[in-house]
Amino acid sequence: MAGLSPRRLPPPLTLWMWAVLLVSLLTPGATLTEKRLLDQRPNFIIMLMDDMGYGDLGSMGEPNRETSNIDSMAQEGMLFPEFYTGAAICSPSRAAMLTGRLPIRNGFYSTNNFGHNAYTPQEIVGGISDSEVLLPELLSKAGYTNALIGKWHLGHRPQYQPLDHGFHSWFGSPNCHFGPYDDKSTPNIPVYRDRNMMGRYYEDFHINITSGESNYTRLLADEAVAFLEAQVNSIRPFFLLWTPDASHAPHYASRPFLGRSRRGLYGDAVMELDHSVGRILDTLKRTNLTNTLVFFSSDNGAALVDAGYGGDNGRLLCGKQTTFEGGFRVPTIAWWPGVVPPGQVSQQVGTQMDLFTTFAELAGQAIPGDRIVDGINLVSALTNENTTERSVFFYRGDLLMATRVGRYKAHTWTFTTPVEELKKGIDHCPGACVANLTTSVQINRTLTPVVIDLARDPGETYPLKMGTAEYTRVVSEVWKVMDEHLHDMVEGRPALDWCDDAVMNWSPPGCEALHECLRAPASDPYKCDWPH
Amino acid sequence: MAGLSPRRLPPPLTLWMWAVLLVSLLTPGATLTEKRLLDQRPNFIIMLMDDMGYGDLGSMGEPNRETSNIDSMAQEGMLFPEFYTGAAICSPSRAAMLTGRLPIRNGFYSTNNFGHNAYTPQEIVGGISDSEVLLPELLSKAGYTNALIGKWHLGHRPQYQPLDHGFHSWFGSPNCHFGPYDDKSTPNIPVYRDRNMMGRYYEDFHINITSGESNYTRLLADEAVAFLEAQVNSIRPFFLLWTPDASHAPHYASRPFLGRSRRGLYGDAVMELDHSVGRILDTLKRTNLTNTLVFFSSDNGAALVDAGYGGDNGRLLCGKQTTFEGGFRVPTIAWWPGVVPPGQVSQQVGTQMDLFTTFAELAGQAIPGDRIVDGINLVSALTNENTTERSVFFYRGDLLMATRVGRYKAHTWTFTTPVEELKKGIDHCPGACVANLTTSVQINRTLTPVVIDLARDPGETYPLKMGTAEYTRVVSEVWKVMDEHLHDMVEGRPALDWCDDAVMNWSPPGCEALHECLRAPASDPYKCDWPH
Repeated sequence: MAGLSPRRLPPPLTLWMWAVLLVSLLTPGATLTEKRLLDQRPNFIIMLMDDMGYGDLGSMGEPNRETSNIDSMAQEGMLFPEFYTGAAICSPSRAAMLTGRLPIRNGFYSTNNFGHNAYTPQEIVGGISDSEVLLPELLSKAGYTNALIGKWHLGHRPQYQPLDHGFHSWFGSPNCHFGPYDDKSTPNIPVYRDRNMMGRYYEDFHINITSGESNYTRLLADEAVAFLEAQVNSIRPFFLLWTPDASHAPHYASRPFLGRSRRGLYGDAVMELDHSVGRILDTLKRTNLTNTLVFFSSDNGAALVDAGYGGDNGRLLCGKQTTFEGGFRVPTIAWWPGVVPPGQVSQQVGTQMDLFTTFAELAGQAIPGDRIVDGINLVSALTNENTTERSVFFYRGDLLMATRVGRYKAHTWTFTTPVEELKKGIDHCPGACVANLTTSVQINRTLTPVVIDLARDPGETYPLKMGTAEYTRVVSEVWKVMDEHLHDMVEGRPALDWCDDAVMNWSPPGCEALHECLRAPASDPYKCDWPH
Repeated sequence: MAGLSPRRLPPPLTLWMWAVLLVSLLTPGATLTEKRLLDQRPNFIIMLMDDMGYGDLGSMGEPNRETSNIDSMAQEGMLFPEFYTGAAICSPSRAAMLTGRLPIRNGFYSTNNFGHNAYTPQEIVGGISDSEVLLPELLSKAGYTNALIGKWHLGHRPQYQPLDHGFHSWFGSPNCHFGPYDDKSTPNIPVYRDRNMMGRYYEDFHINITSGESNYTRLLADEAVAFLEAQVNSIRPFFLLWTPDASHAPHYASRPFLGRSRRGLYGDAVMELDHSVGRILDTLKRTNLTNTLVFFSSDNGAALVDAGYGGDNGRLLCGKQTTFEGGFRVPTIAWWPGVVPPGQVSQQVGTQMDLFTTFAELAGQAIPGDRIVDGINLVSALTNENTTERSVFFYRGDLLMATRVGRYKAHTWTFTTPVEELKKGIDHCPGACVANLTTSVQINRTLTPVVIDLARDPGETYPLKMGTAEYTRVVSEVWKVMDEHLHDMVEGRPALDWCDDAVMNWSPPGCEALHECLRAPASDPYKCDWPH
């Protein structure tokens, strides 16, 4: 009976396209049609890696070729070699994906340090604003069951947590798995089930900092498989956001994967993530849940500050934290048997904000009309019909640093790693020195942008010569696009300006039952300092 | 009848392996067996690209993914992500491949400029020595028909040409297609059919330097297809060395390919080469000549002096001319239906000198016992049985610069681009600056080598910290390997020391019939100057 549910068998493409069209024409009001079409709506999964770089997959040229499951996913689906995040750092990137809006609009930035990235460490006071409409909230209206399994990172205080922003269930942590802490000056990060903590990293959810051993990725994969199996008999479509963090430092892997990679612990972590991706796709196939659009991507480029012990951005310039391609361009694959044709490579310039728009439209939900949404609908790219022209804006914190128009990217500000951080051995651009581009101070080049032809030079190594006809034409186009963008800009209230040690994860909900409540210090708000 | 010839149908692997074993056990003398097994010997093709970089193929991560035929070849065959040339520049690299020996042994180097690369421009006096045994000479003994289609580059004076070194036929040029020249101070480069010139570049074989249009790649592909079709009814196995030069500056492509690539003229050239690779493999399939071991590779890394208008070495450091990975590591694929399993990636560390040894052994020919051959037999790697440990030596001219042992590479000398060349805008390492590694002067670091873990860091960006146990262990291993290597070294007489404008291609054989003989200046030998 369950096996015959039409929702789980992909309908012929043309019928399905017609159905989506009907929904968008008839929404709202056409309740009878909607009810019928609800059963046609696809399920959605986003598998969002943490700090995984553009060059980390075999299918993206990684020489050790250790990601056979993800590479198979690419062969069965569509690779997007020109896909971007909404920011070069975790929290703003995730906020952009789930709101379909740039961090400068949704508030996931700070004005404390001009042109510097901010995120949500556990001393952050703010989080995602109630005024933002998140993808799971839209999908809820369309009858979806929404699950988050893994890291959240949109604010850890109770009012910012996923179950108050559209998710129906959650297993995972609100912040990065930094630690171990002493629970005195700093509490260890909790792991939640829905609204209550289940324990803390290093205490209840172990990560051996010396060996790198941890079962946490396996837990997250088990949770994902269990969630999917539970959907087989559901009449509702689902949205699963799967966000493991093993490829974010401190890296970890479970015992069967430790030492398996030729790339060290980071590679072990990637191999276990690859194995987990295989498990999730196999579960979809095994349970006939193949009317599911799955996206694989990463929240930002590889963190090159790990100095050879982390991910690899391949040929791209610099890494996480920067507005060069190595910060924003991420390995991205779409998979949807019967709809996304196999073995394709799309030249669509995409962003993770497009997932908001694409999923909403596929679910028959109008995107909010009262605000600018930066995402575009990728359906015609996914079905290989045509690509859509679009610009990409590269912000670092509150500052627009670069703009991509067509195949060209113009850097109007340049900045790599601040000098005082370089002195500490922190470097977002190790081994790279491109004249006028990889500057360790912020330089305003708005009047003479450094222009790159990304089709010819994805590594951002050969800026166009100033004064050439090509340069002049591109700069004038970019200025026009920037002007329009900035003219229409309504900046969100910055959510990441204030910190306070009192808001750290001292006593998360559920700590009482576990006897893991800690005493918070007195509130003493201060302006967060963002060194990058 | 032709269709049933056993030579053209791949026999079952086990039978074939047993046959090879028999040959090697019974050689020489077992004439009856040999005669039978002659029909089992595979054909060989090497498709050797010119200045194509490690990152230039879709299957190697090139974001525009414009090489569908070569990528299919990789899917049908075996990719070698850790495959090296014998030198980082054309002539020594090709001499190494065809002799199975490092240029320092076969004489393709110069002592004029310490640690600088030499090659065979048309003013070179020397060429490949008669004392060297070339792969086609060995294969001739085994009854093979050997054809060279494309660039030779082992000496252009008559005594050095391919028909005197084992090839039975040749269509192509002896030198690079530089020009156009005025035929007064410098003659244009000839194109030969066998022992006679057929015309000259820019005069009879057009390359439009402004538009980049030329039919020459199509000619070379037509020649290859015609050669293969002519082999269908031959009882002899064949060896085809196909060496087009469109991806070497000045780049060119025929009209149907001009403007097709998103990467500019270089990309157009690559797309036409890709198309030609498809034609050659299709011909093998169509004519049932599938008992053919085909290698695709490149003579050295991309020439980064083309400053964004040439090839791309992906994540590898620097380019052609250097002993960094971007100079030596090249995209390499093996294809042999029924023997090389499809869709495989080999972790064998290979060099093009291995093709000499592998082909010789597959043809039942013993490699010369009176000299050191640097190639190893790749058969067990090709059949995915096991890989062979081996070291790799990175020479620049007469100087051993780096040594790879296992996964580690130790740079005992460092040198990128000489300062006086940098001043002219020539840069072999654009955008790269790795401390202690990318030095524009020659620095001897033999006592404190810069050590790279290539498995973890193929981009040579994160040298091991000196003083660590790992560093100390690796350096002591490398020193041992270097000592043995240098102890056994018998340097060949340097063939590339002397230049003379009188030896240029003024009056190649065959010029009389074409009325294209030019008057040579009086002989005035001088020591060639090698700036790189």
